[in-house]
Amino acid sequence: MTRIDLNSDVGESYGRWELGDDAAVLGVVTSANVACGYHAGDATTLRRTCVLAAEQGVVVGAQVGYNDLAGFGRRFIDMDPVELVDDILYQIGALEALARAAGVTVQYVKPHGALYNAVVEHESQARAVVDAVRTYDPALPLVGLPGSVLLATAERAGLRTIREAFADRAYTPQGTLLPRREAGAVLSDPAEVARRVVQMVVDGHVDAVDGSRVTVHAESVCVHGDSPGAVAMARRIRADLTAAGVELGAFV
Amino acid sequence: MTRIDLNSDVGESYGRWELGDDAAVLGVVTSANVACGYHAGDATTLRRTCVLAAEQGVVVGAQVGYNDLAGFGRRFIDMDPVELVDDILYQIGALEALARAAGVTVQYVKPHGALYNAVVEHESQARAVVDAVRTYDPALPLVGLPGSVLLATAERAGLRTIREAFADRAYTPQGTLLPRREAGAVLSDPAEVARRVVQMVVDGHVDAVDGSRVTVHAESVCVHGDSPGAVAMARRIRADLTAAGVELGAFV
Amino acid sequence: MTRIDLNSDVGESYGRWELGDDAAVLGVVTSANVACGYHAGDATTLRRTCVLAAEQGVVVGAQVGYNDLAGFGRRFIDMDPVELVDDILYQIGALEALARAAGVTVQYVKPHGALYNAVVEHESQARAVVDAVRTYDPALPLVGLPGSVLLATAERAGLRTIREAFADRAYTPQGTLLPRREAGAVLSDPAEVARRVVQMVVDGHVDAVDGSRVTVHAESVCVHGDSPGAVAMARRIRADLTAAGVELGAFV
Amino acid sequence: MTRIDLNSDVGESYGRWELGDDAAVLGVVTSANVACGYHAGDATTLRRTCVLAAEQGVVVGAQVGYNDLAGFGRRFIDMDPVELVDDILYQIGALEALARAAGVTVQYVKPHGALYNAVVEHESQARAVVDAVRTYDPALPLVGLPGSVLLATAERAGLRTIREAFADRAYTPQGTLLPRREAGAVLSDPAEVARRVVQMVVDGHVDAVDGSRVTVHAESVCVHGDSPGAVAMARRIRADLTAAGVELGAFV
Repeated sequence: MTRIDLNSDVGESYGRWELGDDAAVLGVVTSANVACGYHAGDATTLRRTCVLAAEQGVVVGAQVGYNDLAGFGRRFIDMDPVELVDDILYQIGALEALARAAGVTVQYVKPHGALYNAVVEHESQARAVVDAVRTYDPALPLVGLPGSVLLATAERAGLRTIREAFADRAYTPQGTLLPRREAGAVLSDPAEVARRVVQMVVDGHVDAVDGSRVTVHAESVCVHGDSPGAVAMARRIRADLTAAGVELGAFV
Repeated sequence: MTRIDLNSDVGESYGRWELGDDAAVLGVVTSANVACGYHAGDATTLRRTCVLAAEQGVVVGAQVGYNDLAGFGRRFIDMDPVELVDDILYQIGALEALARAAGVTVQYVKPHGALYNAVVEHESQARAVVDAVRTYDPALPLVGLPGSVLLATAERAGLRTIREAFADRAYTPQGTLLPRREAGAVLSDPAEVARRVVQMVVDGHVDAVDGSRVTVHAESVCVHGDSPGAVAMARRIRADLTAAGVELGAFV
Repeated sequence: MTRIDLNSDVGESYGRWELGDDAAVLGVVTSANVACGYHAGDATTLRRTCVLAAEQGVVVGAQVGYNDLAGFGRRFIDMDPVELVDDILYQIGALEALARAAGVTVQYVKPHGALYNAVVEHESQARAVVDAVRTYDPALPLVGLPGSVLLATAERAGLRTIREAFADRAYTPQGTLLPRREAGAVLSDPAEVARRVVQMVVDGHVDAVDGSRVTVHAESVCVHGDSPGAVAMARRIRADLTAAGVELGAFV
Repeated sequence: MTRIDLNSDVGESYGRWELGDDAAVLGVVTSANVACGYHAGDATTLRRTCVLAAEQGVVVGAQVGYNDLAGFGRRFIDMDPVELVDDILYQIGALEALARAAGVTVQYVKPHGALYNAVVEHESQARAVVDAVRTYDPALPLVGLPGSVLLATAERAGLRTIREAFADRAYTPQGTLLPRREAGAVLSDPAEVARRVVQMVVDGHVDAVDGSRVTVHAESVCVHGDSPGAVAMARRIRADLTAAGVELGAFV
């Protein structure tokens, strides 16, 4: 039986500012990328999110990013890799303490935002992420983009890697994501998005923007929960996967 | 043989800003109160400090404080106790990850600055500190002021408490610290300070500001390292304790 | 003809986090308390808010607060008054630059959140707010609670003061606000709230929680815009005031 | 008579953390690049620095940077140019308020650290700096590297530009700065550095690393004050310039 993980970013509120409907999205996904306070997520939000994840049986992962609340971690920062290693350790450890207070543990790591994009190609930052995870716990899997420098580096270092597909993004004929700035890069029709996810998971391929068929091997599919429409789309994806006989479950 | 712990605040640099001579002070003390990033201490500083502590065989503790870099944690913040619990868990966990990267672990907790002073009397914040430590690890000792609400609350909760004396502070006839704003509150003569510490440790009492003798029971003595004079004073204290036949050693 | 100002907090988004419907509320009020980046409000939000205010002919004021994004300025911080003066100057100046880029200027100052509440009684912080405003521009009015230490201090210093009433808050028989933690402290029925505001503005009194009638002299009434319901309530207040023959207009 | 400005970075302390001997360096330079709170400099430090500058008759400029205390503004951040414009306006306005409290005004703008380096070539960030200054006050001069995109963009926009030379840096045969990572990039002998500055100012050229002579046209020379050695070097530069008959004076 085919099996897939659904992951989503959660825990991204900060103090007075609420973002996303974590309770709803945690009822849909199997893995929760919980923010760690650097790009979003105050300590109380982290704990509450971990409690919700624990209640739903959703696996908790550390969504680590640049130290940039004002930019929500979405701006590349040309950091010293040594400092990046330590910043990532800091974030994982902080989340771990709040996850344990909720009765769970951090079971994987996924870079966030601009860091996620940077480590597709940026060698020294990719090595920093890998070094941090290996230092923290070499048994923790690392989630990233298939074909990225991050995953290649992680594999050479002996880490388990989780290849991720994106539910609502258009793919190029080369199997990479169409950049967000291009027309049609982000898909919004829930039925169409769900159909594509089923196609990726069951058949291992997806229709590229030029109509060609490209191979997509993914152990996890990223969905969103930061708007009512996003949660509805995630539910549709889960429902259609289940109807297609796919088992939903975390990769850990 | 009499035995005492010497503790000092370290890891309080932040990015470009250096504070204190951690390498020097870690050659003198037996316990290191390492900042956790809220009042001071970036992640790389935390790791470097833990490495230095490990090399010197100095025990690492988490120096937790208010989330206030601009105020260095020295301004009381009227926080929601629930959020304070979570903020403390966040800090301990963050430091733990960097301590483990240095081959050691967090072995005690000490509140910093305005939080240290607040929990002498502030019941809900004292309970928050105790709840955080008990949630994180009920085997971790908590360092505080003798007679404080913090230590009383911690003892009722079953935590081990470490009573702390201050090397360079004048005491009232009631055995409390003379407030810093009063004349003569901070002592600066290394020989006199060292003599008083030996008296506290060996005889269990100290001369109060009015000349009376007050009882001081302490398992740890706080010294400073944030100036060349402070390090010299700490060395003198250690030398005079050793000369008096006192064994220096961490309480854990 | 009776005239009243309606003010509301705006500009409180921060980076990725949106808060309130500033465009809607700026279509209702006559004065905009724009956040200044310390408790909320990134620079781009400040500028965009000032542009919206300018378009609507709404007067811009500086909503100054404690340096506490995580707490949204709602936690008392026991600051050195000298530093508070400078922090307030910093905030007003920062907003001024963005207001001028939008073609307007800062025309009044209103403390936010915990600072607003503190200066009702806290003498040295009240003096700090007054000193900051007087240093920046002694012609700027200061908005605050009638009977507060802030307004008394400001008047003695020769500043113009604006007494403020709260549309959706219950009043004690003494004319002070019923604390938020008490049942019935916050009113939610738009018709009832609008009726009370008309009563305050036209008749100069309001029904207290015990049914007695208390005098309320206010030059400005604070309304909210941080939820769809709040905006609807603000519109109802404005409509009912207009229907009662009250002219809406800023106090400057 | 030949005339030159000496500028230095000041106001870079932050809360508990002191950096540089501002009082000493303000006794040497003619222009003070005062930090604005984004990369360094709390509000009280800014005001105190402006007071010291006013006392010494030193001109105050805004040293604007990325919003990155942890990185001291020394890490490139791939910011949205629109947000960079607003962040720079915010910083200039904030400093202006504290400068005016000290009886002076902001008279020029100089980018700091990674922003300074970025705008040598980064077109959209250079335009953002220029747009911010032009929006704030088109009469304010902008200090930057000769040959930089920043200065070219500023000139096209009608801003006055100030070309800056560096006292303690080696130059390439092309007249650019030898990158810091190269051996010999930073010069440390005060006599040699002072000799080179006199040569630049009086003769308009300097010896490049390969022994060739390169032209350097500068209206201001940057010196440092963040160590006792740096202050001594700055004094030597000033003394040797004076001995060579050069008049020291701000460019404004």
